[in-house]
Amino acid sequence: MTDLVPGKLARVSGSVRIVGAGLLGASIGLALMKNGVDVILADTSPAQLRLAVDYGAGRAGAEGDAPDLVIVCTPPDVVADTVAAELSHYPNAVVTDVASVKLEPLRELRRRGVNLVNYIGSHPMAGRERGGAISARADIFLGRPWVICRDGETPTEALALIEDLALDLGAVPIEMTPEEHDRSVALVSHVPQVVASLLAARFAEAPETSLALAGQGVRDTTRIAASAPELWVQILAANAAPVVEQLDLLAGDLARVADALRDPDAPGARRTAADAIRDGNVGVARLPGKHGQRRMFETFVVMVDDASGQLGRLFGDLGELEVNVEDFRLEHSPGAQLGLAEISVDPATLQRAVDGLSARGWRIAGAHA
Amino acid sequence: MTDLVPGKLARVSGSVRIVGAGLLGASIGLALMKNGVDVILADTSPAQLRLAVDYGAGRAGAEGDAPDLVIVCTPPDVVADTVAAELSHYPNAVVTDVASVKLEPLRELRRRGVNLVNYIGSHPMAGRERGGAISARADIFLGRPWVICRDGETPTEALALIEDLALDLGAVPIEMTPEEHDRSVALVSHVPQVVASLLAARFAEAPETSLALAGQGVRDTTRIAASAPELWVQILAANAAPVVEQLDLLAGDLARVADALRDPDAPGARRTAADAIRDGNVGVARLPGKHGQRRMFETFVVMVDDASGQLGRLFGDLGELEVNVEDFRLEHSPGAQLGLAEISVDPATLQRAVDGLSARGWRIAGAHA
Repeated sequence: MTDLVPGKLARVSGSVRIVGAGLLGASIGLALMKNGVDVILADTSPAQLRLAVDYGAGRAGAEGDAPDLVIVCTPPDVVADTVAAELSHYPNAVVTDVASVKLEPLRELRRRGVNLVNYIGSHPMAGRERGGAISARADIFLGRPWVICRDGETPTEALALIEDLALDLGAVPIEMTPEEHDRSVALVSHVPQVVASLLAARFAEAPETSLALAGQGVRDTTRIAASAPELWVQILAANAAPVVEQLDLLAGDLARVADALRDPDAPGARRTAADAIRDGNVGVARLPGKHGQRRMFETFVVMVDDASGQLGRLFGDLGELEVNVEDFRLEHSPGAQLGLAEISVDPATLQRAVDGLSARGWRIAGAHA
Repeated sequence: MTDLVPGKLARVSGSVRIVGAGLLGASIGLALMKNGVDVILADTSPAQLRLAVDYGAGRAGAEGDAPDLVIVCTPPDVVADTVAAELSHYPNAVVTDVASVKLEPLRELRRRGVNLVNYIGSHPMAGRERGGAISARADIFLGRPWVICRDGETPTEALALIEDLALDLGAVPIEMTPEEHDRSVALVSHVPQVVASLLAARFAEAPETSLALAGQGVRDTTRIAASAPELWVQILAANAAPVVEQLDLLAGDLARVADALRDPDAPGARRTAADAIRDGNVGVARLPGKHGQRRMFETFVVMVDDASGQLGRLFGDLGELEVNVEDFRLEHSPGAQLGLAEISVDPATLQRAVDGLSARGWRIAGAHA
């Protein structure tokens, strides 16, 4: 597991209680444990709790636990209930949650008249396609934004505690209002999910011969369509207003392009289509890169036989050449008895890698930035 | 460059003429040259032609060239013109094209009364985000489908020539009617392009703070939005009818989900949203895997230090354990001095791999289907 730099939280906090030991709860637990924090786990499912404890994400709760910080990691539809219960049970603790929607739980808590001085909603922008404690990983927060929704009442020390949590886990704290947060995730997460799902849904009944022509483009476009329906229905229902607003805009854009293509030789039709693609160019270029990283690597492709021994020899050779592999991807060609190993390296070592491997008899299929 | 197995085409064909020395033309040229074929290149841009020739994709044409095969690799809007000109100029040659739309050029050629006995449309499902001869690679066709649209008139030898071309380049020939082809690419390529572009276009004017929350999901969903507008307007206009049909269906699906979310607590609303996500699960699972693979593998994750020597040892150990690596992916944790090696193997060898590696001191972070 990742050995994090000893964090601030271990110094300021006696113990941290995590309610809900699924993917996010167990991942936070794993990371905090590495960090020297006493982590108390709770889950309505004894099996899930046991798994997370066995996994090293924390210990089961005991009489007299007095956490300084409670992190609610339950599904969105029970977040408000859980936050209210924890605030009442641990009146001296700061309580946060990690739900992907921030306004609806806050409204619900206000409707109930809960004293929210000790509550700060937050949302780490991290996750995996696979859920549950079994998929937990201490490093999923590294370099990811962690949204913190303070309000006017929030005491400075409480805010600092949540910021320490985010920083200790390697995340980047970002302050936003709940409204800003919900509009933002509708745009960059919830609407893309709906669109990818609906696009992929069209393949459910399509002829197999048509799908045989699918390439990497459509696979990428629809990858997140593999997400779990249960969680997503809760998220979409809880953030319905901003999602609907964006879906309506998108439906209008779709209709405009479809109308233009109904008569592609009409004046302005091709311009409408070109503008859509061009605006897409502009938009996609504005998205931040992987992990917020912008470092550039050089990539080259080596042809390898479809055998693990070959890869061992390849990495052995790269080690002898003192070339560090920054990224690696193996592509298979069914029918062909070879794979394409796409290797990314520091630009300074590219020439050495390509020349050295060629000299050792490797076939280099191409090098590109 | 790729050393392909010496191909049939070199034996049956004196020379192959490629018209249009962009990404596809130059890539085909590179592959055929490696294959021992005499490749003649033509392009309306002298600079592009010179680049492709310098790149090793073929030679410039000369008086008296008599190709057996002409491959038209021009932009879609001039394909019919070029095919007609080539058929008339080289009446003994088989002429094919590689345009991404097959019905419209055929209709245009028929309208002009061109004798089409020697013409067979085709479409290699290969490409890159970057265009031009400079991005050419002999290996982009490996394992990819190559659609061949014969008609009743097509002589067997002509069909065999195009199949040899596809096979020599490592592609998988698939026969389809032009109508089937166009409907299929509308579904798996053209509509996903429009959707990705429109989704990304919404980011063109969005606040930077919102975009800062973007993760890998939306980056994948919108990756192809980086495609070139000029080419795509031609493709969409040429394949307008099947694209419009799919866009209309999708707009209807979007409206249905938006309506459900307008009142998420109404009876049936959550079911509508859940069905959309669930149908997406079904659809995305039907897409063929990378390069058309459908075999299921088991995946496990091994923690490795951030050093190439470690990967050499890992693959060496897997080789000794007689475990064949079907897929491999290296994930880096910025800040942490380790990587996560995600390894896919045949289910029958999973236990042996995990136990064997653990016994040799490797830290296994998780195994899952």
